Amino acid sequence: MVKRNAFYAQSGGVTAVINASACGVIETARKHKDKIGKVYAGRNGIIGALTEDLIDTSKESAKAIAALRSTPSGAFGSCRFKLKGLEENQREYARLIDVFKAHNIGYFFYNGGGDSADTCYKVSQLSEKMGYPVQAIHVPKTVDNDLPITDCCPGFGSVAKYIAVSTLEASFDVRSMAKTSTKVFVLEVMGRHAGWIAAAGGLVEEQGIPVVILFPEIEFDQKKFLARVDAMVKKHGYCSVVVSEGCHYPDGKFLAEQGSRDAFGHAQLGGAAPVVANMVKEALGYKFHWAVADYLQRAARHIASKTDVEQAYALGKAAVELALKGENAVMPTVQRVSDKPYKWKVGVAPLSKVANVEKFMPRNFITKDGFGITEKCRAYLTPLIKGEDYPAYKNGLPQYVQLKNAAATKKLENFKI
Amino acid sequence: MVKRNAFYAQSGGVTAVINASACGVIETARKHKDKIGKVYAGRNGIIGALTEDLIDTSKESAKAIAALRSTPSGAFGSCRFKLKGLEENQREYARLIDVFKAHNIGYFFYNGGGDSADTCYKVSQLSEKMGYPVQAIHVPKTVDNDLPITDCCPGFGSVAKYIAVSTLEASFDVRSMAKTSTKVFVLEVMGRHAGWIAAAGGLVEEQGIPVVILFPEIEFDQKKFLARVDAMVKKHGYCSVVVSEGCHYPDGKFLAEQGSRDAFGHAQLGGAAPVVANMVKEALGYKFHWAVADYLQRAARHIASKTDVEQAYALGKAAVELALKGENAVMPTVQRVSDKPYKWKVGVAPLSKVANVEKFMPRNFITKDGFGITEKCRAYLTPLIKGEDYPAYKNGLPQYVQLKNAAATKKLENFKI
Repeated sequence: MVKRNAFYAQSGGVTAVINASACGVIETARKHKDKIGKVYAGRNGIIGALTEDLIDTSKESAKAIAALRSTPSGAFGSCRFKLKGLEENQREYARLIDVFKAHNIGYFFYNGGGDSADTCYKVSQLSEKMGYPVQAIHVPKTVDNDLPITDCCPGFGSVAKYIAVSTLEASFDVRSMAKTSTKVFVLEVMGRHAGWIAAAGGLVEEQGIPVVILFPEIEFDQKKFLARVDAMVKKHGYCSVVVSEGCHYPDGKFLAEQGSRDAFGHAQLGGAAPVVANMVKEALGYKFHWAVADYLQRAARHIASKTDVEQAYALGKAAVELALKGENAVMPTVQRVSDKPYKWKVGVAPLSKVANVEKFMPRNFITKDGFGITEKCRAYLTPLIKGEDYPAYKNGLPQYVQLKNAAATKKLENFKI
Repeated sequence: MVKRNAFYAQSGGVTAVINASACGVIETARKHKDKIGKVYAGRNGIIGALTEDLIDTSKESAKAIAALRSTPSGAFGSCRFKLKGLEENQREYARLIDVFKAHNIGYFFYNGGGDSADTCYKVSQLSEKMGYPVQAIHVPKTVDNDLPITDCCPGFGSVAKYIAVSTLEASFDVRSMAKTSTKVFVLEVMGRHAGWIAAAGGLVEEQGIPVVILFPEIEFDQKKFLARVDAMVKKHGYCSVVVSEGCHYPDGKFLAEQGSRDAFGHAQLGGAAPVVANMVKEALGYKFHWAVADYLQRAARHIASKTDVEQAYALGKAAVELALKGENAVMPTVQRVSDKPYKWKVGVAPLSKVANVEKFMPRNFITKDGFGITEKCRAYLTPLIKGEDYPAYKNGLPQYVQLKNAAATKKLENFKI
């Protein structure tokens, strides 16, 4: 069999541009119909592969697939599900091979973050370890921007733009109110271990806005923090605080922890903003407002970064091209060529060096006092939020596409996960 | 003296388009230099008038004033400060007259909500009750949309658009995750007593998205609410909840109350979302995410409604034109002419009928079960969020204007508020 089908799945938390990567994968595969047959998408990620719940993307029109480029979230459904190692979990891998065989799947495109890179890496070994020929290519995606080797991750530029724009707007608001009312505004942002998203709030300092950032990389020091906020309010009359959900005390305790854990065993966070805001109120007496952006930040396709959309698409496209070149166990990356003017090209990283490695903010991206970003960080971030890429609107709302997501006919027995 | 100066001030919580009204006032006044001298803006609202802290807007370029149209927040500063009645507080009114006299102010434009309409109304009586000739015109502004007579309030359309877009995007996100992770997303929105903002979340139902809305107008019934969410999740696999900060139990107790009160004596709310989310988790076991939009929603000029921006500007312009016609104690309004196509014109309301009157959602705008919006409501809301009016961007961020805000020379003794 020369011409084999492809499998594509979305994994982990979705983003404003993961569908742009899907668009890149599917449109590029369609351009190479001589070599790639159908693209099957996993319904709800890898679970769709295990349960043989495959979406036949060939049933979608070219227009619908093109519209993925400007639609946030995971159009085929995502999941939080991590395959165990080959040794511990032969059964699931054997099932994957059964499904791949049944549907003549020779290409595996997995669109996710660090955990997913690990899953993709394990699938890439099926050929060697279990004798099934499959090429596994990872397409990077994470709002946290915490994958190694790639200069940035698709998904991050848009959330960074959302946080920068929101911090700017809310800071204008609190400044208007500060004379008689709110003096401190606290915005909680995502970022479990890495402070990239929080750092984006620092981009508004260029406009003269006082911002205090609380990074997960810097142990929280309440006394220093309060002194900093007080100094800012005394100088400017107001102050904005951007707090990462992963901000924690020296003993590792998060400022706010809801207690539950997700499928990967990560603590589910949320609620650092009210903790910080009340801290300010109690110690300094300043009236506060706080916001928790949560999903709004990573779903905000309406204010996506053009750079980010282009990179998401390009890496989806590159993944297919790498597969066609015979590559396995790799991930296309963004390689920065220059800051000013911003230039980048597509690179390649071996999955063995990507899986389960987290990239944190370098210490020299954070100011000495730990509450701001440096010029180096600003030079890194600025190009990533550059450009607007507005979706089409109808009746005041964005026209995001909802696919038909028709199921491919099942050929195997049911499988229990 | 034929040609007199004008005073303009922003009051209460600011919005994405209150500066568009300021733009309408100042640009229109500049077009009538034969009749109106300078426009002085109160620094931090009415407090600027009392303390003689007047901003001389004639020092701002035409370009800077034009840029107000696409800049959120209150460019001159706002305040939460309510003048007491004329009888109780002669001293402050006497001071206002001193300041008006010293700066030859004959026009008073006050840009605010219900409390401000009351203040404006009191100022409009200075002529009759204290012998100082001043024409007071109120320019409506409130995200809550709770002013009477006017079909809608500038500021509301943009926050409604923000909430509708955010609910749409977050719902796409939670739908992607629902199979193995988050099933219920809770978004908390503003609206102390009126549920207009929460209602905007219902606009996404047209796209097949299951939404449960908690209005301040409907007493919270936990049992019915949980049953509704459960039914939605069982049917659709996921569900979004839009909860108004003013949602409360039958005894009047808010779902979440931070305990402090603002200068108008209103309870400062915030935190209903985590309460609702945890309620769902405990009773139904569904994994949740929650967001509190807070200032982000009312400051979000980046996603402002074009209709709203146009109306905000038009009512600022109309206020000046009413003044030139010799009117006093009035407020320009939006009069809806038709829904489809949406047509509106500028009307006029007497301030005596506006001050301290709150407009709630009519019961027939809310579905029988109390958790959704009716077709009637949809027909009302849709035109208000229609059209996009993007600000200019530079380096990935909106180019919002920061005025010089030069102070006019003081002529009087200091005054203690």
